[in-house]
Amino acid sequence: MRTQALYGAVQEDLSLVEDVFESLKHGDYGPLGDMLDIVLSGGGKLLRPALALLSGRFGHYDLDLLVPLAASVELLHTATLVHDDVIDQASTRRGRPTVNSSFHNSTTVMLGDYLFAHAADQVVKTDNLRVVRLFSDTLMIMAKGEIRQDLTAYDSRQTIRDYLQRIGGKTASLFATACEGGAIVSGQPDEWTQAFRDYGYNFGMAFQVVDDILDFTGDPDAMGKPVGSDLEQGTLTLPSLLLMDRSPKSNPIQKYFTRPSRERLAEAIQAVLEFGVIQESYEMARDFSQRANEALDLLPDLEDRQTLRDLTEYILGRRS
Amino acid sequence: MRTQALYGAVQEDLSLVEDVFESLKHGDYGPLGDMLDIVLSGGGKLLRPALALLSGRFGHYDLDLLVPLAASVELLHTATLVHDDVIDQASTRRGRPTVNSSFHNSTTVMLGDYLFAHAADQVVKTDNLRVVRLFSDTLMIMAKGEIRQDLTAYDSRQTIRDYLQRIGGKTASLFATACEGGAIVSGQPDEWTQAFRDYGYNFGMAFQVVDDILDFTGDPDAMGKPVGSDLEQGTLTLPSLLLMDRSPKSNPIQKYFTRPSRERLAEAIQAVLEFGVIQESYEMARDFSQRANEALDLLPDLEDRQTLRDLTEYILGRRS
Repeated sequence: MRTQALYGAVQEDLSLVEDVFESLKHGDYGPLGDMLDIVLSGGGKLLRPALALLSGRFGHYDLDLLVPLAASVELLHTATLVHDDVIDQASTRRGRPTVNSSFHNSTTVMLGDYLFAHAADQVVKTDNLRVVRLFSDTLMIMAKGEIRQDLTAYDSRQTIRDYLQRIGGKTASLFATACEGGAIVSGQPDEWTQAFRDYGYNFGMAFQVVDDILDFTGDPDAMGKPVGSDLEQGTLTLPSLLLMDRSPKSNPIQKYFTRPSRERLAEAIQAVLEFGVIQESYEMARDFSQRANEALDLLPDLEDRQTLRDLTEYILGRRS
Repeated sequence: MRTQALYGAVQEDLSLVEDVFESLKHGDYGPLGDMLDIVLSGGGKLLRPALALLSGRFGHYDLDLLVPLAASVELLHTATLVHDDVIDQASTRRGRPTVNSSFHNSTTVMLGDYLFAHAADQVVKTDNLRVVRLFSDTLMIMAKGEIRQDLTAYDSRQTIRDYLQRIGGKTASLFATACEGGAIVSGQPDEWTQAFRDYGYNFGMAFQVVDDILDFTGDPDAMGKPVGSDLEQGTLTLPSLLLMDRSPKSNPIQKYFTRPSRERLAEAIQAVLEFGVIQESYEMARDFSQRANEALDLLPDLEDRQTLRDLTEYILGRRS
């Protein structure tokens, strides 16, 4: 992805974000550095840092402030992924062993906390209390979103509205913060800052909807997880919820949730793939990405604006 | 403890910190509030918040800033306790069921994250970037201290120096931050701020040494954990390390670590209690508390200074 210059004018500058991670890995007590190396070298696409930098291009593009911001967003994201690994008992992520499979469960919890600490350390380097406050709010929203997801597992009374609220908290809020943070740090006017928040939020919603689609349609090898892993863990996502909406009284998902078995899971996945709900889900993702792009209308017509719009197209078409 | 007016002039104001916790419990989505209720009503002594407020008494005592600071310190402390519960697989803490025994392991991890978010939210309310930075540094030090403890479990090559460094990071750093934060928020001169940092750090060291002594000598009912629980989990503390120093080549702790069994654990605990290392540990705690009190020499002779000095006496004599 990186080699396709998808990130336009900030493509090169992303290496500065990677440099931050390298310095963290080498700057500490051996075993800690090794752990950071595992979680920060996972072939992540640095999508959130790229959005932070791109947003900063519309104001005073000061890399001394924008790079720590971008690094902080990615560290916060990574911290939640690490804690997710504890949560889901997943043994692989992106096809690589998860931290949790390399270390004790307890160590994984602490490693996540350590990443939170690094995220805090980086965001403080922006020297901007408003950005710090934004991060603190985001952490709160994300933590609530995660707990909500956990508490509602295997609960078939959830609605699409619940789902949208959940992914808003779990995913979209951090994308919104990446973009809004970039605008704030680069000193942009309030209405641009709001536009970037809207862009980021809707981008994040589209991103997560596609992610949830790919959980059903993606190549398990490329995704690094089995088909239907969300359903398997009792998590209802958009395709499942659309299917349940079609036949609320009796459907294979409800059957699976009532008494989980391998066969019932396979039946539920099959139904999701056959009854057109994947297409319907894609339409919803497209709606979000359109809203994201429209939010940018009031910004100057820089090349970076096109880069941001191309990115929303890219995430709709991604395969893993 | 609270009824003895141990906290002098700030005793009453601590109820404002409790009010913050109450408002957090009632301000959110039902199940989340219930979880906060369990972890924030644990009969904690609010020692760290009290220190933050007492330190603030030497400057501009503005409760609008000091109460969020004090609440933040306690929330950060509680977050680490919650994550510790995941780590240690402990089923009780302070004699009450731990969160982890009331909720799924995964929920406990997220609840800790949620408490971190609240800690961040409160510290940002101090509107002081220097204090935010202090918190971020402290989180980093604490996270490192925890990982270090975890990675060195059952490793009998540790030294007393390693131990002091570990408890410095795990415990004393947050006490130092409570006191230093109080001084910063109330606008005190740099040398007073440093004095409070020194006081808090040494206070915290004394506190943790006593804690580690009580793990051997305390009443299991009052402590809410069995005698020798640290050793049982492979954690070497000061009494154990002093014992190992006396007979480095062969001692019952090394035997227990080499091949853990109930009998070997009992033998090791017995040896710690019999060979005078408890008294020696108390002498070390007393040294730290003296250093804490001496750090206050350069401060004005307010009644609050005596309160702080009485507190160091109190923690030396505590029984649980």
